[in-house]
Amino acid sequence: MDLRKLFYPEKIAVVGASPGFDGGKMPFFQFLQFMEYAGALYPVNPAHAEISGVKAYPSLDDVPETVDLVIAQIPARFAIDTVKAAGRNGAPFVHFFTSGFSEVGNMELEKELVETARASNVRLVGPNCIGVLCAESRITFNMEFKPNGKGNVGFLGQSGGVSDNFVRMSGSRKIRLNKAVSYGNQADLKLEDFLAYFAEDPEIEAAAIYVEDVKNGPAFLEALGKTTASKPVIMLKGGSTKRGAKAAASHTGAMAGDFKIFSSAVNQKGGIIVDTFEQMMDLMMLATSSRLPKGNRVGFLGAGGGTSVCFTDLAARVGLEMPVLSQAVQDRIAEKIANVNTSTANPVDLGAFGFDFSIMAHTMLAMDQDENIDVIMPYFSLDFITSFAPHLASTGPQIILETAAKMKKPVIPILSKFAENVLEMEKVRIEMFSLFREGGLAVFNTIQDCVYAASSILKWSNGR
Amino acid sequence: MDLRKLFYPEKIAVVGASPGFDGGKMPFFQFLQFMEYAGALYPVNPAHAEISGVKAYPSLDDVPETVDLVIAQIPARFAIDTVKAAGRNGAPFVHFFTSGFSEVGNMELEKELVETARASNVRLVGPNCIGVLCAESRITFNMEFKPNGKGNVGFLGQSGGVSDNFVRMSGSRKIRLNKAVSYGNQADLKLEDFLAYFAEDPEIEAAAIYVEDVKNGPAFLEALGKTTASKPVIMLKGGSTKRGAKAAASHTGAMAGDFKIFSSAVNQKGGIIVDTFEQMMDLMMLATSSRLPKGNRVGFLGAGGGTSVCFTDLAARVGLEMPVLSQAVQDRIAEKIANVNTSTANPVDLGAFGFDFSIMAHTMLAMDQDENIDVIMPYFSLDFITSFAPHLASTGPQIILETAAKMKKPVIPILSKFAENVLEMEKVRIEMFSLFREGGLAVFNTIQDCVYAASSILKWSNGR
Repeated sequence: MDLRKLFYPEKIAVVGASPGFDGGKMPFFQFLQFMEYAGALYPVNPAHAEISGVKAYPSLDDVPETVDLVIAQIPARFAIDTVKAAGRNGAPFVHFFTSGFSEVGNMELEKELVETARASNVRLVGPNCIGVLCAESRITFNMEFKPNGKGNVGFLGQSGGVSDNFVRMSGSRKIRLNKAVSYGNQADLKLEDFLAYFAEDPEIEAAAIYVEDVKNGPAFLEALGKTTASKPVIMLKGGSTKRGAKAAASHTGAMAGDFKIFSSAVNQKGGIIVDTFEQMMDLMMLATSSRLPKGNRVGFLGAGGGTSVCFTDLAARVGLEMPVLSQAVQDRIAEKIANVNTSTANPVDLGAFGFDFSIMAHTMLAMDQDENIDVIMPYFSLDFITSFAPHLASTGPQIILETAAKMKKPVIPILSKFAENVLEMEKVRIEMFSLFREGGLAVFNTIQDCVYAASSILKWSNGR
Repeated sequence: MDLRKLFYPEKIAVVGASPGFDGGKMPFFQFLQFMEYAGALYPVNPAHAEISGVKAYPSLDDVPETVDLVIAQIPARFAIDTVKAAGRNGAPFVHFFTSGFSEVGNMELEKELVETARASNVRLVGPNCIGVLCAESRITFNMEFKPNGKGNVGFLGQSGGVSDNFVRMSGSRKIRLNKAVSYGNQADLKLEDFLAYFAEDPEIEAAAIYVEDVKNGPAFLEALGKTTASKPVIMLKGGSTKRGAKAAASHTGAMAGDFKIFSSAVNQKGGIIVDTFEQMMDLMMLATSSRLPKGNRVGFLGAGGGTSVCFTDLAARVGLEMPVLSQAVQDRIAEKIANVNTSTANPVDLGAFGFDFSIMAHTMLAMDQDENIDVIMPYFSLDFITSFAPHLASTGPQIILETAAKMKKPVIPILSKFAENVLEMEKVRIEMFSLFREGGLAVFNTIQDCVYAASSILKWSNGR
């Protein structure tokens, strides 16, 4: 289906636009102004002659042009009339923020809405959702969204809140969002329609989905298979338990099926199912990092025997291998360190030398020469950096980033901290994180997050 | 075994004390000065007449009194002589920071060390470990340690780094540490000896363990069973996989057995095995909070349908129940909220009203009246608080804390955020976290951490 005008509308009407936002209204109109949306913008509201500096129209019928997208936030009882007016206007898409349909048991009204849309030659997003975002066309459902270039990530979320959260977390992690749809009750346009568009969209390199129910299994699986052939798709399933499904029903009217069947079908089509929102974000960050590991053989380096042991356990449990480094590589690592309480085998424990960025970089370069290693994970202890080497926090990470850029193998840094509620350390962490992310690296805060993300993405890339 | 003089030494000699800290030395002597240890302190080092303002003695034999504890950081070749001198002094305990024993394959020297200790009537901590910490007697192996009262938590760690990390994270989470031992190679005193002491120690209400190998299974399990009869014991096992066990062998000389057998034996004795360091800390925080849930029936309240659905899934998967609230309680909740996009059933989704601390408090009180609920988990979205109600961030949490104090049921707040790298939000989070922690509540940052901790602690308390 051609959704191009939905994502790249040149003219938008906002029905129910308002200067104030009482009664659960969302300032869609003002979002678009704030984002400096470049197309024509028509607020529609019979109660106002003007909204936020723009002439308002009493009804959609008064809008002088055919628009590409109608955003509607009006009481549910006016929804049918709005669709009819959209049909008269010639608008191909209406997004209903409006709720009060199947999610509250009002199946009849939702059915009538869709029938009216069909008869009016109009396609619907929602109802009961916050709609569409596109970095390139500067449309958004979230005021916090700051486009970072064109973006390369697509998101589809049945829940408005989860979609909002995705925008926030992807922004703060420098994951570059290209398009997002909060698709709600999917009365007309469904998850699979948006996903099929993503499959063909050259801007989108990886997709994430929050879904409560799939309306048409075969169509969804077909769209999924097409997408995963060239880009990873990460899915979080809400309502994967009986009790969760009940909660989902009252949220988006979802009627969830059996999760085991669902997840095995998704896996078969190359999709990756995660258990938590944070895992979804971790995988999106790794999936869109500058380089992905080509195999599952990890080289780990850091300071601390216990951490090395725990990392090795976590890695082994998810099927990552940690080959013993070749003697030549071990010898090269040993050049720079004393041998008290250290190990060069892999995991490489540099002992107290693990707090020295130059020795970390030297070790990474040595490991890069080992042909039995696919990916290198350096572990940085923020506690020790801030305690013992705060003067290096500004120059040291730059050395690591420059070293990673010279290497043949991908580098995934882990920024670990144990003193958690220290603002000064957060500052150091955020700066290191930003530097590494701007250099195209995925960055994790714990060994378990790093191990989980690497093994999950490898399952997708190996399955292709 | 009576370890009282080890934890509460009135006189300490530090053999190998030094004014400088080159060559991997730890400033044990200076730690004790810094902590304002009140007992007698004897630095021993033939190269110095004075160390950090205190008269130094050329050898242990020159120390004029019998000491309770010798801390030794000397090359391994002098270890035997140091034990003999401790015997002549009459010191009951020697802690060897010194490494170079079984962890590097030097089994013979370690064996001789223990035989010498036996003959000299001396007990050993370590070797290859950072030793003993006690808040009450003000002895420490970590300069970051700031006693917060007497403390109520005990920690035993085979790894010095992991022990350090425990001190740091427990401090930053306001978990009040009472005693810790980094016990290393456990050549003489073993994990089970320290644990048996914790079992009887009235100061210790919960214990955590990082272990790479258990030397004497039956003795360990006996000590474990005695401890879990009155206090939870949380264990992280390093070397639980084959590859991890290999890494552990070079770290502390550990010879790990079969993890499945080990973990089922631990569970049978009422111990709780965790997979990650962070889980261990989560459980310690909950175990020492002011009140534990008496059953597994959870009431969840917050803002957001998708989050409610995901919470319900996570809860159901670990066996937590979420009973539908009684009609009277639902009616009371509904008094304060409009019914657009909300649900009062449980999970309670307050929609946009979930950002109002007073309505959250009102809802908590209503849920407290429901006899089918054991524990209440309010979910606070820091993103929305900082975006829309920053003026309430100082007064709102106080209302929640006061409400929790009035309630019959335990309250476990979740402080969630999606924009992760924003210093201003960290500030709000740290302040809310501190306030709730000082009020005796366990606090989690994600729904999954909260659900995991609650279900794990319930398994322990139900098993008693």
